[in-house]
Amino acid sequence: MGTRKFFLDALLAEFATLLLYFLRTMKSDLPRLMQERNLDAAVIFGVDGLGAANTAFTYFVGDAHVSSGYVVLQRDGAQLRQTLVHRGMEREEAAKAGMPLVNYEHYRMPDIIKSLRGDRRAAQVELLRRLFGDLGVAGRVGFYGADSVGRSFNLLNDLSRAEVCEVVVESENDLLTAARRTKDAHEAGLIRQSVRLTENVIGATRDFLRAQRVVDGALVKADGVPLTIGDAKAFIRRSALDAGLNYHDCIFSTGRDSAIGHSIGTPSDVIRQGKTIVFDIYPPGPGGYYADITRTWCVGYAPDHVQQAYETVMHVHNAAEHAFVVGKLTHDVQEMACDMFEAAGHATNRSNFGSVSGYYHGLGHGFGLDVHEAPYMALRGTRPDEFFERGTIICNEPGLYYPDDSRGGWGVRVEDDYWCDENGTFVRLSEFDRTLVI
Amino acid sequence: MGTRKFFLDALLAEFATLLLYFLRTMKSDLPRLMQERNLDAAVIFGVDGLGAANTAFTYFVGDAHVSSGYVVLQRDGAQLRQTLVHRGMEREEAAKAGMPLVNYEHYRMPDIIKSLRGDRRAAQVELLRRLFGDLGVAGRVGFYGADSVGRSFNLLNDLSRAEVCEVVVESENDLLTAARRTKDAHEAGLIRQSVRLTENVIGATRDFLRAQRVVDGALVKADGVPLTIGDAKAFIRRSALDAGLNYHDCIFSTGRDSAIGHSIGTPSDVIRQGKTIVFDIYPPGPGGYYADITRTWCVGYAPDHVQQAYETVMHVHNAAEHAFVVGKLTHDVQEMACDMFEAAGHATNRSNFGSVSGYYHGLGHGFGLDVHEAPYMALRGTRPDEFFERGTIICNEPGLYYPDDSRGGWGVRVEDDYWCDENGTFVRLSEFDRTLVI
Repeated sequence: MGTRKFFLDALLAEFATLLLYFLRTMKSDLPRLMQERNLDAAVIFGVDGLGAANTAFTYFVGDAHVSSGYVVLQRDGAQLRQTLVHRGMEREEAAKAGMPLVNYEHYRMPDIIKSLRGDRRAAQVELLRRLFGDLGVAGRVGFYGADSVGRSFNLLNDLSRAEVCEVVVESENDLLTAARRTKDAHEAGLIRQSVRLTENVIGATRDFLRAQRVVDGALVKADGVPLTIGDAKAFIRRSALDAGLNYHDCIFSTGRDSAIGHSIGTPSDVIRQGKTIVFDIYPPGPGGYYADITRTWCVGYAPDHVQQAYETVMHVHNAAEHAFVVGKLTHDVQEMACDMFEAAGHATNRSNFGSVSGYYHGLGHGFGLDVHEAPYMALRGTRPDEFFERGTIICNEPGLYYPDDSRGGWGVRVEDDYWCDENGTFVRLSEFDRTLVI
Repeated sequence: MGTRKFFLDALLAEFATLLLYFLRTMKSDLPRLMQERNLDAAVIFGVDGLGAANTAFTYFVGDAHVSSGYVVLQRDGAQLRQTLVHRGMEREEAAKAGMPLVNYEHYRMPDIIKSLRGDRRAAQVELLRRLFGDLGVAGRVGFYGADSVGRSFNLLNDLSRAEVCEVVVESENDLLTAARRTKDAHEAGLIRQSVRLTENVIGATRDFLRAQRVVDGALVKADGVPLTIGDAKAFIRRSALDAGLNYHDCIFSTGRDSAIGHSIGTPSDVIRQGKTIVFDIYPPGPGGYYADITRTWCVGYAPDHVQQAYETVMHVHNAAEHAFVVGKLTHDVQEMACDMFEAAGHATNRSNFGSVSGYYHGLGHGFGLDVHEAPYMALRGTRPDEFFERGTIICNEPGLYYPDDSRGGWGVRVEDDYWCDENGTFVRLSEFDRTLVI
């Protein structure tokens, strides 16, 4: 009997765990996520100067041009009450965020400062005490968003000391990381649009390269001057901006640079036949949602060792794609990629930590309002455990890099984007041709 | 004798204070600023995702494409030792920052995590303990930069508890605010370039508006369709991007919108004769340094009440420009502006806090890598005291706003940019024509 009960309990525990895997953790799940953390309220800092980079705030205010304020979330059973606290000057932009508003000026900060004899730091605490009182924010309150390290550290300590509320500061897997780890259909739709626009830029860039003449193995422009990485990047920039993408820069690097993970390329480098070009482009598109796609190209021909590496990379790429299964630990796919690369004779970050050749990075990461966000595929133990689930958005980007190869440095990476739909099926969002030689 | 000594002491104290006013507080002054704060070292967080918005980090790494790491400053007498701690993948980009490098991977985080039985939070502290030990970072260490509120709060508390160093967290007027409050000639040169490029965009936009036909008081395009705010913004965007500015958006608003501080304009609004257009454009240019310029225009003619408001605004603008004097409290100029606007019969944020009409904002602010940074001109007591000094970069932007005027809402703001040069002379950097009617 005892054994049987143990078996049943284990089965139930397993079932409960499995159930959790299948639960989507998106914005609509915030009340449940707050309950799990025993949070009565959550405050998300919006900070002048950080702008759209403060994506925890953008997650709630969207495209509204609100430079500073607070988003306050309150759990009311299975419902979520949201309030946007904003500056008076931004009242009409704040209204676009579509949630109840509180004008910060209502609290008359200059008067509070005067009443506290000029102590601005105490006045900040007093203003939040009054605001929280009016909103009914009390109990365990979590704090999120980005801010200057000093300001937020002091403010949270002050709030705690003044007993304005119980200040809860989460580390890994915090409320917003958990909510943002999966995307709802609306978010996935925006990402799909970003992917499509980004692929148009990749296609235009390939056509642009193909349209150049070749002289002595180098691409040359109509005026006979060799085509450089800088020229290609100018073309990419224009194409991306014309497509309405919020483009800043990309990785477009050749030869040795293409073997260095985050090298963005050397503008003066000439584009030559038979040299690898790693083109990794990650612009935010509609609603601020990113795409993240990489193609590796060789103009004209690919040397044998590059062709072989490309095939190894695509072998891992395909295997990873098939390993994306709801309920599986994301890190298991990174471990699998290391197994495969090591079996093919390449160093990995697991076999040789800190190596600058072979395969030395994570196999992929989630993306959304940030270009890197949960979940991550990493070596087991180095990041929190995360699972593939419905709503997962993730990229798959195996690569091989040999900066110091005596035949000349080279790198290969192929990166595609995936969404796990409502049925638990992983859909590849990026469809652009992956042929190496162009 | 006692009285005389007191008088001499007071004089010396006054002299020392005055001397401080005249000392420039720029990057080269960091050793002195650290000494004043009794800091042995300073650590500036660089955080993946925040990118260039984390300007405390950008201040040191510049254009180098370094997405995460730490800048460590150590005081060595009058010298400053700088180190950039970076990820291995970004080693070549990190090298562009031009300071000694430490590769974070050298500390083999996965091994530290294993040795601490999977405790990633403790491993982070242990890694910093080893890094600080190797660099000789000890004693009082200040922490700066932007980060997620939760991560930095926990990390600083952990470092303090583990006695890795004495964690110093400044509030107002912190080390980097103080250093960045004034600009050296190189920074001023970059800002001057941004101003010039931005003025070219303003000029092109004025020519674009002038080139349209007028039908029934509305501007219409060649195809006979009325010209909208959206059309103008599309033109501005293209001009700014062509000029190489890192443009995102601007305030280009008309009628009632132009009376609402941070309203960025309604794309479908038609541009009409006799209506105010507030055009406030603030793009980062070379090196990430901003310009911030506003012009108010009326196409064809300006109604009398708008013309009168424009003259009042320019009266304050000119008076403020003359009040920029080394050693003066910046807030005094805001108080003066309030005096002048109130004397002209307008409500101000001082006479009627929270008012949404009249003059309701600060007269100006510093700018540099952030579009809003120290010093500020604000009501006395509401912000830390700051003084005009050599190296000050500040804008001057008086305005009047009447969203609910029965004749139709309108707003007027004129904003120019200034630099206090090495001789203590305030130079107006923006020269674009300020005529109201175009």
